[in-house]
Order: sequence, then C-alpha cells, then structure tokens
Amino acid sequence: MKEIILSGMRPTGKLHIGHLIGVINNWKILQEKYNCFFFIADFHALTTEYNNIKEIKDYVYEMVLDWLSCGIDPQKSTIFCQSDVYQHCELHLIFSMLTPLGWLYSCPTYKEQLKEQSSKDLKTYGFLGYPVLQAADILLYKSTKVPVGKDQIPHVELTREIARRFNSLYSEIFPEPIPLLTEFPYLPGIDGRKMSKSYNNCIFLSDDPKTIKNKVAKMFTDPKKIHKTDPGDPTNCVVYAFQKIFSQNYKEIEILCKTGKLGCVEDKNNLTKVLETVLIPIQEKRKSYDKNNVKQILVSGKNTATTVAQETISQVKKLIGLGIQ
Amino acid sequence: MKEIILSGMRPTGKLHIGHLIGVINNWKILQEKYNCFFFIADFHALTTEYNNIKEIKDYVYEMVLDWLSCGIDPQKSTIFCQSDVYQHCELHLIFSMLTPLGWLYSCPTYKEQLKEQSSKDLKTYGFLGYPVLQAADILLYKSTKVPVGKDQIPHVELTREIARRFNSLYSEIFPEPIPLLTEFPYLPGIDGRKMSKSYNNCIFLSDDPKTIKNKVAKMFTDPKKIHKTDPGDPTNCVVYAFQKIFSQNYKEIEILCKTGKLGCVEDKNNLTKVLETVLIPIQEKRKSYDKNNVKQILVSGKNTATTVAQETISQVKKLIGLGIQ
Repeated sequence: MKEIILSGMRPTGKLHIGHLIGVINNWKILQEKYNCFFFIADFHALTTEYNNIKEIKDYVYEMVLDWLSCGIDPQKSTIFCQSDVYQHCELHLIFSMLTPLGWLYSCPTYKEQLKEQSSKDLKTYGFLGYPVLQAADILLYKSTKVPVGKDQIPHVELTREIARRFNSLYSEIFPEPIPLLTEFPYLPGIDGRKMSKSYNNCIFLSDDPKTIKNKVAKMFTDPKKIHKTDPGDPTNCVVYAFQKIFSQNYKEIEILCKTGKLGCVEDKNNLTKVLETVLIPIQEKRKSYDKNNVKQILVSGKNTATTVAQETISQVKKLIGLGIQ
Repeated sequence: MKEIILSGMRPTGKLHIGHLIGVINNWKILQEKYNCFFFIADFHALTTEYNNIKEIKDYVYEMVLDWLSCGIDPQKSTIFCQSDVYQHCELHLIFSMLTPLGWLYSCPTYKEQLKEQSSKDLKTYGFLGYPVLQAADILLYKSTKVPVGKDQIPHVELTREIARRFNSLYSEIFPEPIPLLTEFPYLPGIDGRKMSKSYNNCIFLSDDPKTIKNKVAKMFTDPKKIHKTDPGDPTNCVVYAFQKIFSQNYKEIEILCKTGKLGCVEDKNNLTKVLETVLIPIQEKRKSYDKNNVKQILVSGKNTATTVAQETISQVKKLIGLGIQ
C-alpha cells in the first residue's frame, strides 16, 4: 500500500506563481508516488481571518480550480475541504485534552506570527491551538510524511509529540510522521521582496498576457545597468531570478547580460513570453472546469477522506471509551 | 414552542444522594416545563481525566441508568452522550477562533481548579478551553436558560460573551442564555464536609440497606450530646441536615433532640428508614433497565440531538462560508 501524504493550503487569496513553484509542482510529483490527500484548510484560515471571512467562501472554489488547472489530478489525489470532514474537529478536541499549553506557547512560529501579524487580534484560543489542529489533520489520515518548508518543521515535531503522547496514554495507533523537506528554488516578488499578496508584488496564475507584461516591466533589475551595452550583474535581478527557474537557457542569458550583449528591455520581453507559455496553458485548462465540476470533485473527495477519517475516529473513541459503544 | 434547556453531567463516578437533591430532582421539575437536553459530558470528563479514562467507558451507561431510575423520562427529555453528536466538536473549533485567551485565563474557576486539582496535570490546552466547549454545548441547541449553581455563573457569562461576539462578527443567530439559578438545600457528606467521591463520604444511589445503615451510623452528630437525655444542638448535626431534606417531621425531631427526648441512635435508625424509602424505589426501577435499553435511549437521543445540532451547524457554516456550499 502506498504511504499517505497530507498537505493543505489556506483559502485566503488567489494563487500566484510562487505557489506553483513552491507547492503545486511538488504536489504533482508526490501524487505519482504517494496516496495524497490535498485539502483546502478553511478552518486554518479562520485562525487568522475570523473577522475577515469574505474571501474564504470564494477561495474554497477558486483554489481548487487553481489546483486542477495546474495538474493536480482528482483521479490520483483526494481533494477535499477540511470543514467538510467533521472528524478533523473531533480529533482536534481529543488532542486538545492531552496537549500541554507549554508546547504551544514555545512553538517558534507562535510568537513570530503574533509579531508579524500584529495588526490582527490573534491572542485567541484558536490561534494558539492551530498546531493541535494541524496534528489532527495529519494524524487523522495516519500520514507518515508531511511535505513542508523549513519553517514548518517545528509543527511536524509537535505532531510527533502529540502522536507519542496519545500512543503512550492509550495505545500505539498513530505513526510519527516525518517532514518531507523540499528545497524550493527562491522566487521573489516583482519588487525583489518575498512574493506575497500583502506586498502587492505577485504574478498570479490568472494574470492575462497584458498584466504579465506590465508586471515584468516593473521588475527590479541591476540599477547600474542603464544602457544595453553596460555589463550587468544578475545577482539581485528579479528578471534573472525568474529566468533561472523558467528559462532553460538561463546560463546563456547570464553571460549575455554580464557582457553587455543583452539589454533589460529585450530581456524582459523574453521573460514575458516564457511566463505566457507557463501560465496560458493553466488558464486554458481552468476554463474547462466550472463550479459544478469543482463541487463534484469536492463531494467525492469528502467521501473518500471521510471513510479514512471515520476509521481513525472510531478507533480513537473506542480506545478512550467515548460515546455509545 | 417550549424553551430549550441544556444540562449535563460528567461520567466520572457513581451518582450519590447529593446529586439527586442538587441536580436530578431539579431536572425532573424542568422536564415538565421545558424542552430539555440532558447529556453525558464525556468530552468534559476528558479535560481532567484524560490520563485516567477507565471510568468514563463504564459511567456513560451507569449514569444514564441512574438518571432513568430517578425519573428522568426519555419520553419527555432528550438524553444523549456529548461525543455522539459531533457537531459539539465543530462548534467548539469555530468558537475557539473568536475567543480571546484572556477571557479563559480570567475565568475564576480556572485558577481555582488548577489549585484544587493540583495532583493532576491540568496545564493543557483542553482544560483551559473547557468554557469554550461549554459554550458550544449550550449554543448548539440555542438554549435560552442554563440550570447552574452559583459557582458556574461565570461560565454562563462567558457563553453569553461568545454568543455576542459571534453575533456581532457574523449574524445574530445565537440567543444569550441566562443562568437558571436553583437554590439547593445543602446536603453534607457523612463526615460533615462537602459530599464528594474523593472524600469517601458519600451515600450512593446504589447503596443497599446494610450500607446505608453503616454510613448513617458513622454520621457526625453533636459531640456534646452523649446520653439520650442530654439536650442536643442540631445545627452541625449531619443526621439533622439529612432530615431537614428527607423527613417531613424534621421540626418535631429538632424539638425532641433539643429537649433530650430523642437519642442519636434512635434518630439514626429513623433516618436509615427514611433513606431506604428514598433509595429502594430508585434501585428497584434501576433493575427494570438493562444495557440494551440504555443503548436504545442513547441512540434515540443522539438522533434527536443531532437534528437540532445539525441545523445550527449548517447555519453557522453557511454564514462563515465554510466547506461545500
């Protein structure tokens, strides 16, 4: 039997090209090898967006559309929405009983996020407990590997701790999942900072050719290269950062730039074309789905996920002696 | 339509005669007037007993048996087990998002309980959040009144706060339930302290006549009354505290005791008989149920409760935009 992998994204905005490179392309590789459960983490979105919910409703569907357009295949992977599988809530409540507060307060991301998102009121019970929910998500499916970035390793460690605590208190039923670290190439936003909706520096999967052209035109390049013939330094050039990922001939481009044989305008025109070849097929594929297709996929995913989840919950409730036996 | 009332008990031990006087007899009155939901709070039991679960499994059934024997009527009231209605977990998770940690830490019972139960490791996420679960229990059924003792008033206040917060963030769908304070006559344990399993001073509903006799024999009386003819002071006499509740002629007894016309031995024999007349019918009624009856009642209660609970959860999820819409 294939190993189970679980991964999710919060429905808090349109996907950008950074998500494609950092997450979706990796999922496409994983779905060939593992039994993948990919979920829309709408409860997780609530931990920070409980007083800003207008986007959640729309992006549940929009995000699944994005996934499908990029090649996540519902024949290979189970695609579902977290809140449609109520067993997440049951396991979250049960895990809450055996999770020391100290584990949550000492989680490195907790204080970081409180500081980073200081404009939001995040001193809530739910925000503190979000690693408990994450542990429930992962262990509900008895996932053995969790694809994460480096910053998420402490959460997987916390999931392992909760699994160990449950196993030692009641019975050895949960695996201790390990992080599946993926080294992602770094893709900055058009201004050189981290690509992020809040910085308004993203290239979205849904951007049309004109928008792509405008955004590429604004990309930061080497400020010392003024004329085409000036030798350029691609190190901090955003255009080059993109080319390293999307253009097969990036090494050639590097030499042409450094030797003053390629100007920034031409360079940007080339990148625009390359990005079009990446994004237009995704946008075309997107048109082949409507809301009804997405709904059917989510219903089918919900059913598959519920079957696995219910098996775990029944086992857990029987072990503890909860409810009608 | 009748107002809805919700009340529950934790399945952590056999019921004693203090529960009968303090809770069950009140429920019997309430079930004549209200649409009552009485539930076995097995998740609440986990908040303090997560590492001592062996009793939960047994007492789910035993406690329902006790309720039925005392006259809680499944034809009039909905009797169910909390963990059988998963919507409690869903609403708990949703409420967790909008509950400030400060509300929970400043709840007067939190620090009290940490101190009182200092032998247990209660610095857990679930123990801190138990008023959130309680709010979910109450509001899931849109209960308007909650029967509580004085010490539980802060929890009902917290439920009102959570209802207000939800209503102001999303839409006015929850009532703000009010505490239904009941003045219970005080019934001490046989040693004069509060009647409690942990003090080993209870008279249980299941005690047979011989056990009742032995326990009454041990009851504390006025230490200055040594001979029958000594005038006694019933103020701190445990036997008298019981008689005030269970004996119709308690005023007469008071005079006889004070004037040295009634000795403690005779007095205790009388009380034993009175307690037998209270407990034996309960024990007889208990024999008319078996585990299968209880199971049927719990299944039927689960179904009734789930119908109401699901209506609330569907409304909540639609408002926030969670899941397949």
